[in-house]
Amino acid sequence: MKEIIKTDKIDHIGIVVPNIEKALEHYKNVFNKIGSKPIISETQNVKISFIKFSNITLELIEPISEKSPISNFLKKNPLGGMHHIGLEVDDLNNTYSDAKNNDLEPLSKPVKGYHGRDLFFLHPKKMMNTLFEILSKN
Amino acid sequence: MKEIIKTDKIDHIGIVVPNIEKALEHYKNVFNKIGSKPIISETQNVKISFIKFSNITLELIEPISEKSPISNFLKKNPLGGMHHIGLEVDDLNNTYSDAKNNDLEPLSKPVKGYHGRDLFFLHPKKMMNTLFEILSKN
Repeated sequence: MKEIIKTDKIDHIGIVVPNIEKALEHYKNVFNKIGSKPIISETQNVKISFIKFSNITLELIEPISEKSPISNFLKKNPLGGMHHIGLEVDDLNNTYSDAKNNDLEPLSKPVKGYHGRDLFFLHPKKMMNTLFEILSKN
Repeated sequence: MKEIIKTDKIDHIGIVVPNIEKALEHYKNVFNKIGSKPIISETQNVKISFIKFSNITLELIEPISEKSPISNFLKKNPLGGMHHIGLEVDDLNNTYSDAKNNDLEPLSKPVKGYHGRDLFFLHPKKMMNTLFEILSKN
């Protein structure tokens, strides 16, 4: 049996929103949870905030420019929606090689996230139409 | 500050797939994880299987009839995709009343899931276009 992606932890669920401040206000009212102050990722052209639950984190993402890879998603889904699942692995570079060699079609080479963790995405067509982000440990 | 949905645990991520056996085979190859044997929910007209990670479970769902509420999703997304987030609460009936009274528009009254847990869904338009399932504890 293969094990291309060695992980036992789903780090976060990524949700795209058209307006992150409004989303944070709404989630605060519904869940009484205060998200992290939105930060801007210049490389991805997005604003990002986290809402922590006991076992997993919601990652809210708002594109801030047409250049963002997320802006196409928002064009197709103007109200936003669930976007990706983030998986944590011990060895990101080996996982990248294994993913590539096993035809999971990483969408890019590993890049450094704004949080300092390395990451890449798998082509959703190779993962039953679900977008998975693979990222290194904290 | 309000707290309409009292929860700190995301129970599962629901993913719709066109063929649950193929999806299980694929996930086994990618993650070396064996999902639960698919069971049929007659009330929902779906086949369901779980894949457990250390902190959360993926719930794979395949509609088995046009009567299933999931079959519309698969028509719009023939390859499947991320479908909902399941939140666990202590007191489902109170949460249902609070959700209704605070305009989160539950899609139905609480119903018994095939697993014996009570559950209802919130209207996604009231939750930033993300579908949330609220379910009682195991």
